[in-house]
Amino acid sequence: MSQSIEQDVRVLMDREEIKELTARYCWHVMRGEGAKIVDLFTDDASFDNSANAGSIANGRAELLNFYEGIRPLQAIPFIHNHIIAVNGDEASGTCAIEGRFTRKEESLTGAGYYEDKYRRVHGKWRFAARKLFLHHMVPLKDGWASAHRVKTAP
Amino acid sequence: MSQSIEQDVRVLMDREEIKELTARYCWHVMRGEGAKIVDLFTDDASFDNSANAGSIANGRAELLNFYEGIRPLQAIPFIHNHIIAVNGDEASGTCAIEGRFTRKEESLTGAGYYEDKYRRVHGKWRFAARKLFLHHMVPLKDGWASAHRVKTAP
Amino acid sequence: MSQSIEQDVRVLMDREEIKELTARYCWHVMRGEGAKIVDLFTDDASFDNSANAGSIANGRAELLNFYEGIRPLQAIPFIHNHIIAVNGDEASGTCAIEGRFTRKEESLTGAGYYEDKYRRVHGKWRFAARKLFLHHMVPLKDGWASAHRVKTAP
Repeated sequence: MSQSIEQDVRVLMDREEIKELTARYCWHVMRGEGAKIVDLFTDDASFDNSANAGSIANGRAELLNFYEGIRPLQAIPFIHNHIIAVNGDEASGTCAIEGRFTRKEESLTGAGYYEDKYRRVHGKWRFAARKLFLHHMVPLKDGWASAHRVKTAP
Repeated sequence: MSQSIEQDVRVLMDREEIKELTARYCWHVMRGEGAKIVDLFTDDASFDNSANAGSIANGRAELLNFYEGIRPLQAIPFIHNHIIAVNGDEASGTCAIEGRFTRKEESLTGAGYYEDKYRRVHGKWRFAARKLFLHHMVPLKDGWASAHRVKTAP
Repeated sequence: MSQSIEQDVRVLMDREEIKELTARYCWHVMRGEGAKIVDLFTDDASFDNSANAGSIANGRAELLNFYEGIRPLQAIPFIHNHIIAVNGDEASGTCAIEGRFTRKEESLTGAGYYEDKYRRVHGKWRFAARKLFLHHMVPLKDGWASAHRVKTAP
């Protein structure tokens, strides 16, 4: 092994905690628990939705304002394909996000990915920054092909 | 670290085995292998489907009766967002379930989550109890919005 | 524990690296980065698509020829339900694959599983062989039921 066994075990535990952090995020989003979502972030964290015609929430107050608008079952997200790099008390990662969404009684299906920064604060891993890139967020009845048309054309 | 390295490694291995247990469950469900599904449960285990207008199967005979009714590819489930707490030879967890289902030649899409109890028996982790909560199980052509209507209303 | 703690930690790290290998595969497929996909394989690796009326690509040149044909966002795959067995510098595994596909401006949805062989080469885990088994790859508007009709009949 490239380092001491203590360090290897530390990184393995960090990776598990970071994966579970993203699982808890989904759990609280699904239940519409805005304050509990924000508790998963550091105090100075940001959520950047600007790549999807949204805005950037900076710090706890703006995060609360954003996440408290999510109603139970309005968004049912799932995390896949997690890639993580740990460096001491900092880490970065990319994970796919896919989900089932409801807006004005319409079923939407969405997929994309997060670029994440994580930080260990008082012994717990938190999101220091999340940036969301959506491939599509479309009515289930329409599908995603038209959202990708330009990119997949020859 | 909060405990000895041996304990940390033990918990990491336990978490891996528990995650793989839920993966094996999906594998055997997809293949319609009822007896192999039930082998993943303890002898006194239960599967509680009562939150979804189903019933509760208690013990090996009732579990077999339930799971042997699943045909190959009738249910193709996927597990996501797994949250696990290990405590010695007992553990509990929550994981999202999502899948593709076929009933009477109709394509159904479903999502929900499990509340699980796990127990180590003869050195192997097993399901001691699974309780399923479905958000929806609906025809793919209809989508899930109407199933969530009441909950997402203002 | 059944073996030394060093061995246990080695296997835990191997499993993490193998899971991340399958995540990186999805990442590069989604971005249409053929050469980077092939870099995840050993030089003598194969991708076997013969179970799905496709062909078998053997070795780096054939793999490149296959994977360089994938355009960005043409395939958005997700890996679930990973089962892994590590044996020294070799490993095997099964994982579910599910995804969103676009073909001729049509939205396709697909699900299946991989049978994988992994090998550690120069300290890094690589795919030595992937064999894909698709349950279905169908237009989203049609659903999967008809693709499963024979198998789910009584």
